[in-house]
Amino acid sequence: MTMIRVAVAGPRGRMGALAVEAMITGREFLLVGVLDRKMAERANTLGGSVPIYTDMFTLADEAKPDVLVELTNHESVYPNTRDAILHGIRPVVGTSGLTEEQIGKLGILSRKHGVGCILAPNFSIGAALLMKFASMAVSYMPDAEIIELHHDGKKDYPSGTAALTARMMEEASGDSGAREKGAGRGTDVSGIPIHSVRLPGLLSHQEVLFGGEGQLLTLRHDSFSRQSYVSGMVLAVKEVMNRDCLINGLDKIIG
Amino acid sequence: MTMIRVAVAGPRGRMGALAVEAMITGREFLLVGVLDRKMAERANTLGGSVPIYTDMFTLADEAKPDVLVELTNHESVYPNTRDAILHGIRPVVGTSGLTEEQIGKLGILSRKHGVGCILAPNFSIGAALLMKFASMAVSYMPDAEIIELHHDGKKDYPSGTAALTARMMEEASGDSGAREKGAGRGTDVSGIPIHSVRLPGLLSHQEVLFGGEGQLLTLRHDSFSRQSYVSGMVLAVKEVMNRDCLINGLDKIIG
Amino acid sequence: MTMIRVAVAGPRGRMGALAVEAMITGREFLLVGVLDRKMAERANTLGGSVPIYTDMFTLADEAKPDVLVELTNHESVYPNTRDAILHGIRPVVGTSGLTEEQIGKLGILSRKHGVGCILAPNFSIGAALLMKFASMAVSYMPDAEIIELHHDGKKDYPSGTAALTARMMEEASGDSGAREKGAGRGTDVSGIPIHSVRLPGLLSHQEVLFGGEGQLLTLRHDSFSRQSYVSGMVLAVKEVMNRDCLINGLDKIIG
Amino acid sequence: MTMIRVAVAGPRGRMGALAVEAMITGREFLLVGVLDRKMAERANTLGGSVPIYTDMFTLADEAKPDVLVELTNHESVYPNTRDAILHGIRPVVGTSGLTEEQIGKLGILSRKHGVGCILAPNFSIGAALLMKFASMAVSYMPDAEIIELHHDGKKDYPSGTAALTARMMEEASGDSGAREKGAGRGTDVSGIPIHSVRLPGLLSHQEVLFGGEGQLLTLRHDSFSRQSYVSGMVLAVKEVMNRDCLINGLDKIIG
Repeated sequence: MTMIRVAVAGPRGRMGALAVEAMITGREFLLVGVLDRKMAERANTLGGSVPIYTDMFTLADEAKPDVLVELTNHESVYPNTRDAILHGIRPVVGTSGLTEEQIGKLGILSRKHGVGCILAPNFSIGAALLMKFASMAVSYMPDAEIIELHHDGKKDYPSGTAALTARMMEEASGDSGAREKGAGRGTDVSGIPIHSVRLPGLLSHQEVLFGGEGQLLTLRHDSFSRQSYVSGMVLAVKEVMNRDCLINGLDKIIG
Repeated sequence: MTMIRVAVAGPRGRMGALAVEAMITGREFLLVGVLDRKMAERANTLGGSVPIYTDMFTLADEAKPDVLVELTNHESVYPNTRDAILHGIRPVVGTSGLTEEQIGKLGILSRKHGVGCILAPNFSIGAALLMKFASMAVSYMPDAEIIELHHDGKKDYPSGTAALTARMMEEASGDSGAREKGAGRGTDVSGIPIHSVRLPGLLSHQEVLFGGEGQLLTLRHDSFSRQSYVSGMVLAVKEVMNRDCLINGLDKIIG
Repeated sequence: MTMIRVAVAGPRGRMGALAVEAMITGREFLLVGVLDRKMAERANTLGGSVPIYTDMFTLADEAKPDVLVELTNHESVYPNTRDAILHGIRPVVGTSGLTEEQIGKLGILSRKHGVGCILAPNFSIGAALLMKFASMAVSYMPDAEIIELHHDGKKDYPSGTAALTARMMEEASGDSGAREKGAGRGTDVSGIPIHSVRLPGLLSHQEVLFGGEGQLLTLRHDSFSRQSYVSGMVLAVKEVMNRDCLINGLDKIIG
Repeated sequence: MTMIRVAVAGPRGRMGALAVEAMITGREFLLVGVLDRKMAERANTLGGSVPIYTDMFTLADEAKPDVLVELTNHESVYPNTRDAILHGIRPVVGTSGLTEEQIGKLGILSRKHGVGCILAPNFSIGAALLMKFASMAVSYMPDAEIIELHHDGKKDYPSGTAALTARMMEEASGDSGAREKGAGRGTDVSGIPIHSVRLPGLLSHQEVLFGGEGQLLTLRHDSFSRQSYVSGMVLAVKEVMNRDCLINGLDKIIG
């Protein structure tokens, strides 16, 4: 088996640290370097065993990664992803904040160079499966509502994941105009009522309910810890090797 | 074992028919008569085996019931209940629609004559247990929200049961003023957000969620059919024999 | 829009009666006849408005149905389905009891004549979606367990649907030998523990739980009444018109 | 308001550290000392701000605590609890491992000296509420089953909490002989089937289901982190001040 050569951008963040660990632990992967603009802290991060680079050019030239796992911030994500593609390194992007315009440009670049790129700001494989299934189910059971439950520290509602799920369901069901509005219950997103529960102790939970004559179908995802993101990241790193264009969303690579 | 002599008022309604069946089936009970103002239909109802009365006086005099199960309508419920107490017959009232003033009068009458009376417009024992437990839990885990789920034919929200549960919780927790408001999520009743889901296929479901540091307590009741009311009715008929005053709510007789 | 001409075999059974009603009600359908060997009871069933046939030949010749909805019994299902295909009528089979050998023969016949045929002994669209999704999810989250909950009148366990779901999951995940056994908890089917709850009041409920690092994905289907089967039947009748071979399972036509 | 003077035995364990933090943070409490046999590590634990004692005599004499929170191990828990009572300090015991005989002795001692003592090896208030409610519900809805779900690292089953819940339910329902056995489904404890789910990602979850005609009552507790124990501990420390005998179980003080 040939190992996939992986570099991680943003190795000192919480997600970055998990990525570094997963790439060191995983037998299919070889962590060949990290991209980190703040040299001074390199020693703390990786104990010196993995080369730390401060620019993409040197990283590409010396470490020769196949894949770049991008976990920096909304300022660095676009240039890092663009430069990776230009150097023939396939990006797996976990950072959010790319604009529609930037995504469009990256898509063109990716296709032009035949360098696969996966955007998956929510790496959780379970959340991706839930969205995928919700998009499929809505064609057969169009009456649906969403309940999302989070700790009371989360003041905004509905959650971004719930709103995205609702929009994906509307897109999948096609006839968006036909959907009757939620009529005052919950928050209406694409005609689907979203109910937001906020209680101390809760972590991150989402339920999509589909009702039909004499039956109920429920899809639920509970995210108990940040560890839930690792499996999706691992999947994306493997899958990006088989792609030659941009994929927007982990759910798009689920068969 | 001495059997309890029971009469049913309103035997031809859906709940009345269930009551008649339960009193005929139950070994602790003897159905001694029904109260029905429309004599003509008597034959269809009971096959002639149980005497049908059109007034309380004759029912009391001839059938000598210990208990009257009241399942008529909001017009008849008050006079029937009052007259039963005056005749020394203990009422178990499943009909809704009594005003606060009428309940007050019945309470005085019940105590004066030492004739027990149980008001339980929702006879389901499971719903009563849920309300009882919710009232107890809120003192220890004050952060709570309610989700009630019904078929989409139910246009109003929140459900009466959910609103009653919230008010009972507020009463139990005492310090109503201290509760922070639900802040736009769901419907705020007594400071508790109630989320109302309406989908085809659903029956009648209610969840109370209590969140605390690192934990979640969930109480849920699913009512799948009208049969769920029978067990509460049976319990109330037995329990009213041990009472000498008015009890408002099935949850009050749960130990 | 051209209406689909439908005949129903076994119109007096509980499912048959639902099928007749659905085909009369549905605007895409025209109920052109029923197949019923017991002529005497025809009047009760359909009020004389729909022709009743006692043999497939006359049904095919006079009523000219596009589709036969097969809802008889395990003795009649095979000859009825076979004869329908031979007459160029597309069968949608809701009756269970076909052997593997019979299914094989029907498959050959269906392909040879280019006459589509859908076998769907469990017509519930929600159950089919759950099985489909469970088969997809297990590739990404291989650790799974099933909980099925039924009324206490159901003495056998695990339920047929739960066992079928487990087998479909094993087939989908491929590497069946690799799955560690359920080790004494629940009933082991294809290496997946199935837990069977039996309680009075319950109807028919099934949950598939997938656990992964820091997360849980839950798929749940509640069947509250026989009405839940109608939507799947309607879908199959429409879909069989686009098929020219045998499809075994409603989940196979879900996109 | 008079503050409660509290000492913690076993301050360096995970539960002990939470107790120290809760007693320092809580405005009703004054942490007057800790009991720790290993003097050397004192500095690390509390930064020198709280006196550390190595024996109960000096602790009692100098720090004069009202309450001792006991969080050591199964060897020290009995002598520590006994000695606290003898010194007039009310113990709140979170350590498990006391034998029935030891509990008996502590009960006699507690009553003799009029010094309250609460044993609560599982401090979670939510779990205590669930047990309390399950014990109450079983008298009204005797048909029950338990589902407990834990991470796959927990090899034993059923969980101790589930088994304890089942035994408390049997005790509450009285007529233990009458309960029909679980008949091969799940693990039978006191005639109640317990189903044990083990999946990666799960934390600690327990459900008690009560079925009745046409209805289902579900009690569920999710424990997401060790933080869930703090609220029960705080409750016990306050409550023990009002007691003059031994209370075995946090559920006994709910009411």
